[in-house]
Parts: sequence; C-alpha cells; structure tokens
Amino acid sequence: MDEGAATTTGHQHGYASNKAAHLKRMARIEGQVRGIARMIDEDKYCIDVLTQVSAATKALQAVSLALLEEHLAHCVANAVASGGEEGAAKLKEASDAIARLVRS
Amino acid sequence: MDEGAATTTGHQHGYASNKAAHLKRMARIEGQVRGIARMIDEDKYCIDVLTQVSAATKALQAVSLALLEEHLAHCVANAVASGGEEGAAKLKEASDAIARLVRS
Amino acid sequence: MDEGAATTTGHQHGYASNKAAHLKRMARIEGQVRGIARMIDEDKYCIDVLTQVSAATKALQAVSLALLEEHLAHCVANAVASGGEEGAAKLKEASDAIARLVRS
Amino acid sequence: MDEGAATTTGHQHGYASNKAAHLKRMARIEGQVRGIARMIDEDKYCIDVLTQVSAATKALQAVSLALLEEHLAHCVANAVASGGEEGAAKLKEASDAIARLVRS
Repeated sequence: MDEGAATTTGHQHGYASNKAAHLKRMARIEGQVRGIARMIDEDKYCIDVLTQVSAATKALQAVSLALLEEHLAHCVANAVASGGEEGAAKLKEASDAIARLVRS
Repeated sequence: MDEGAATTTGHQHGYASNKAAHLKRMARIEGQVRGIARMIDEDKYCIDVLTQVSAATKALQAVSLALLEEHLAHCVANAVASGGEEGAAKLKEASDAIARLVRS
Repeated sequence: MDEGAATTTGHQHGYASNKAAHLKRMARIEGQVRGIARMIDEDKYCIDVLTQVSAATKALQAVSLALLEEHLAHCVANAVASGGEEGAAKLKEASDAIARLVRS
Repeated sequence: MDEGAATTTGHQHGYASNKAAHLKRMARIEGQVRGIARMIDEDKYCIDVLTQVSAATKALQAVSLALLEEHLAHCVANAVASGGEEGAAKLKEASDAIARLVRS
C-alpha cells in the first residue's frame, strides 16, 4: 500500500477500507456460480437454476454498486477537490461506468 | 432558481445547459408512449408492441444517464469542491439514485 | 381482428382481454412522461427528476411483462398446441423478445 | 434422447442437450468471478474492477436467456402440447421467472 503516504495528490482506492467485505462477497458469489454449475450438471429443474442465476446476478450488481459508491466518494471526490482537468476526467469515466452498469 | 445565490460561484442544475435537448427527448418519448397505446388499441401484434416498449424503456434510460452525468459533473462536483458535509451528502444521494437506476 | 378464423380454435391477441387495463396503464405512463418533461422545464432538482424517470421505466417494464405473459399464454400456447413449425417459430420469437427485454 | 418415446408425461430438461456448453460457460464465469476477487485483492483500479463485474453479469444473463429459451422450447412446449392444467401452470411459472430475470 504505497498510497497512504501521498495525501496531497494521492488517494486510496475507494474500496480499500472495505476490501475484506468485498472479498467475502466475491467468495460467496463464486460459491453461487459453482452451485449453479452443479445444478446444471445434476439436471436440476430449469426454473430452479434460473432462480439461482438471478440471485448471483443481483449479488454481482450489489458488489458493483458498493464499489461505485466508494469510488465516487474517494477517487472521484479527491480528484474533483484537487481541481483541474483530472476531476472532469474522473467524472466522465465514472459516468461511463455507470452507463455500462445500467445497461448490463 | 433560488440556487444561483447559494454559493460563491453559483451553480445551475446540471442539466440546465442541455434543457432544450432533454425536453426534445422527452417529447419524443411521449410520442413513443402514445404510439404504444395506439398499437394496443388497434390490436397490433404483441411482439411488435413489446419491441416499441423496449425502445421507449431504453430512451428513458438514456435520459436518466444523461441527467445523472450532468448532475455528477455540476451539482455533485460543486458540492464536493466547496468541501464539508454537503459534498458527502450529495455523493451519497447520487449513489442511491444510481442504485435505483441500476435496479429499475 | 382477422385472426379469429385462422386456426381451428381461433385466438385473440394475448392482451385483448386486458386491453382496457393496458390502455389505462399506458395513459398513466404518458402522464408520468409529461410530468418528467414539466419537471425538467421547471428546473426541478435532478435527483427528483431521476426518481420519476425510474418510476416511469419500471411502469413500462411492468407493461412489457404483462404483455409478454399474455402473449405466451395465448399466441404462443395456441401455436404450440396446434403443433408443427409455427409453435417453434413463435417460441423463438418470444425468446428473442425476452432477450431484448432483459437487455433493455 | 428419451423424449421421443415418452410423449405422454416424460421429457428431459430443456437444457440437457446443451449441458456441456452451459457447463463450459459456467466454468468461464467462475473464472471471471475469481479474477474479480483477485483484482480487488491486488487493489486494482476501481473502474477496471467494475468493467469486469459488468462482463460477468452479462455472461450470467446470457446463461439465463439460453436456459430460459430451452425451457420454453422443451418443458413448457411439452406441457402445453399435452394440454390441460399443467401447460397453464408451466406458462405461469415461466412468466414469473422472466419477471425475476428482467428485474434482476
């Protein structure tokens, strides 16, 4: 973590403080994905498989929203607060990510 | 517009500069919605109606994304740049709006 | 309605029996869309506009789901029950519409 | 393919014939999910993580749409073709699954 020392311009990733929570969530999603594969392999009923796929999709979406919220509150806010071009660039980049998220 | 006086630099709503474009878009969406109602009224084929509903939904989503991008670039960025509590509050509010958008 | 004669049992569009309900829903959505345009015109707060756009998007989605459910239960089911190529074609067409809906 | 012989009640799951393809897709998604966890663990840039989460979400959605298409074309079509209550029940169940999918 070489970012802690660079307060004037530097910043941490927005999600760093919640890293353990995010990793736990991703581990759970990995388990869901493996469970879906197992259901398919065992010829489980299609609708039950679909229900699990929806649950995994929602869980991924929740991770996206959490990452994005932290990104806005840290990376973007820091760039905006320090002024200049970088703030505008970070805002544009975040808006593009939001659009991808809404459309996915 | 009682907000112009509120900060040193003042700010408009993010979407003010593109207001005419947004209104034009909304007028087009209103036309799409009326067209869908007419299709239903005239017993048009279900799949064709669905195609038009998808188009209108996408058009509304595009308006949301445009409004949100401008909101981040203006209202939120100004609040963040002026520092303090308000920046954090605006960021939280924007993140909640993004979550609603992703889930809608 | 030239379809009544088309098959042995005949069928209406799936949504015909709920036409009044669908038209009422579409009228409400048209009102929502006009309300959003008015909010933009009156420079209402961006986040409040976004909330209304999300509501209109959800309402359109609900119409889609209702139309689709009726389409499956009538047009598609009739085509499948009468056997042959047409059932398969209707199923494929419905699946494509579902994909557009999920991605919109 | 024991479906030809079992027309009265029997059928395979819709996805059985594409099982290998689905399992391959799920294995790829599991890899994507693990890759996202690794990116978070290695403090990769938030926006790059989000891009990967969007890709995994889209991949899961594609699996859902494929499973659903096959479910409609097999389980639902068979139930409808054999007539009676079960067809209606399967159609309702499929419509509910579609609604969950559209909203997830």
